[in-house]
Amino acid sequence: MAARVIESIAQLRGAVAAARQQGLSIGFVPTMGALHAGHGSLIETARRGCGFLVISIFVNPLQFDRKDDLEKYPRALDADLELCSRLGADVVFAPSVAEMYPAPQVCTIHAGSVATHLCGRYRPGHFDGVATVVMKLFQIVIADRAYFGEKDAQQLAIIRHLVRDFNVPVAIQGVATVREPDGLAMSSRNARLNSAERQLAPALYRILRDAERLIAAGAGDPSAVKREAARLLPSDPALRLEYLEIVDPEDIQPVERIDGPVLVAGALWVGSTRLIDNVRVVTK
Amino acid sequence: MAARVIESIAQLRGAVAAARQQGLSIGFVPTMGALHAGHGSLIETARRGCGFLVISIFVNPLQFDRKDDLEKYPRALDADLELCSRLGADVVFAPSVAEMYPAPQVCTIHAGSVATHLCGRYRPGHFDGVATVVMKLFQIVIADRAYFGEKDAQQLAIIRHLVRDFNVPVAIQGVATVREPDGLAMSSRNARLNSAERQLAPALYRILRDAERLIAAGAGDPSAVKREAARLLPSDPALRLEYLEIVDPEDIQPVERIDGPVLVAGALWVGSTRLIDNVRVVTK
Repeated sequence: MAARVIESIAQLRGAVAAARQQGLSIGFVPTMGALHAGHGSLIETARRGCGFLVISIFVNPLQFDRKDDLEKYPRALDADLELCSRLGADVVFAPSVAEMYPAPQVCTIHAGSVATHLCGRYRPGHFDGVATVVMKLFQIVIADRAYFGEKDAQQLAIIRHLVRDFNVPVAIQGVATVREPDGLAMSSRNARLNSAERQLAPALYRILRDAERLIAAGAGDPSAVKREAARLLPSDPALRLEYLEIVDPEDIQPVERIDGPVLVAGALWVGSTRLIDNVRVVTK
Repeated sequence: MAARVIESIAQLRGAVAAARQQGLSIGFVPTMGALHAGHGSLIETARRGCGFLVISIFVNPLQFDRKDDLEKYPRALDADLELCSRLGADVVFAPSVAEMYPAPQVCTIHAGSVATHLCGRYRPGHFDGVATVVMKLFQIVIADRAYFGEKDAQQLAIIRHLVRDFNVPVAIQGVATVREPDGLAMSSRNARLNSAERQLAPALYRILRDAERLIAAGAGDPSAVKREAARLLPSDPALRLEYLEIVDPEDIQPVERIDGPVLVAGALWVGSTRLIDNVRVVTK
């Protein structure tokens, strides 16, 4: 059955309230569209975990630190709706920018210390924008459970803090990253890669896996691990490693010694496309 | 009947959910305690407007820019509970600081441009702290309607922005300032005034009323109005006018000409106590 497409906040609230009235639990998958198999996995997980499934598709201007990135961000609404319907979504909430931001946003979320490293360091205001729109969506959809991909590990950590710090009555569930056969993490931005760039793109995951291997073998000094792993990056003018960091998975602060669970995260420019990925490493 | 006192977030949620289950609408009056007749009016208004009334009493450390102000802030829980019961509150939610902030608050609200003038200019971080705790309380209590005093006009404007900007499903109702016979606005801080200071304190309202009179008589230049009104302040070493401003009542930005509704707001130090007050003036 085709998912019902709703553009208005008032109608979305009505649909969710009606489902809740029927005793259904509400699941929510917020997305920016251009859905891929990673989203598919999120949606399938959500579908199994709730009675009524809402997927939002909204490219949030507030979280883009660069105008060209917002303009170039891939959009594919028809294919997205088809996938959502096929995977059993009840409602696709696809509001306009005017519906979400009828006036300039005066009050915003400041994501704080959890946003100061990794991507937060290179994308000023990005996570404040993410946290702000997610808080808005949580007030609009009022779900029992919301699902976020582990590929965006810092975003997931921020959402967990947001929900805990503001006592938002929603449970947050992370869903494992889905990868191409060569290891490249699924991302809407992969659509921008030309074929040469696509060949180079898995280098990021290979570096992360190498860092994981070093840590598993007992390496405890993050600087040494990063240095050795980064050495594996092919020397190609199209590639530029923006960061490779080893941080605490909860508060996203760099660790001085690796003696507990860590997140190894990186951002790699491939031509004019910026890709991110991470692995979580649990040491004994 | 005595109001039920609840200290835990989980129990509060349970009580509100049970009331909602019974079909009662939920009214909410957030306070910092040390309740006076102004709060009494808030509570009475709320009582008439809802089926189940929750009053919170929580002195929020996050909104105090000065440690001594937090320490000196009057506390009177027994008398507060008595008043809440007498005025018909169903629940008094009185959480500890540890219950509200079990860990450092990482994500916070940034109140933005609406907090840059008036008190926001003199109390750095104050309104971010107010907006943050109010957002938390809105997620915990989940009321249909929440009530705030017009005495704290900038706070009320910020809460209205907060709710609108984040689509929080709660209606905000302002309640008129209650005054002593000599015009002094009711405030928990009045309890700190000695008798000489208490005599001086109504000067603030007199200045505001004078500004109102000048505007009603056709004055359009805010600087001239402020200058002339401030001249009425008794020259007493205990008095220091922190600000007297004429702003737009919605976005709290100074107006260049008075040609629509304005808020005339002031802050006056009386000895070591800081008092605020305002009047809303509607011109033809």
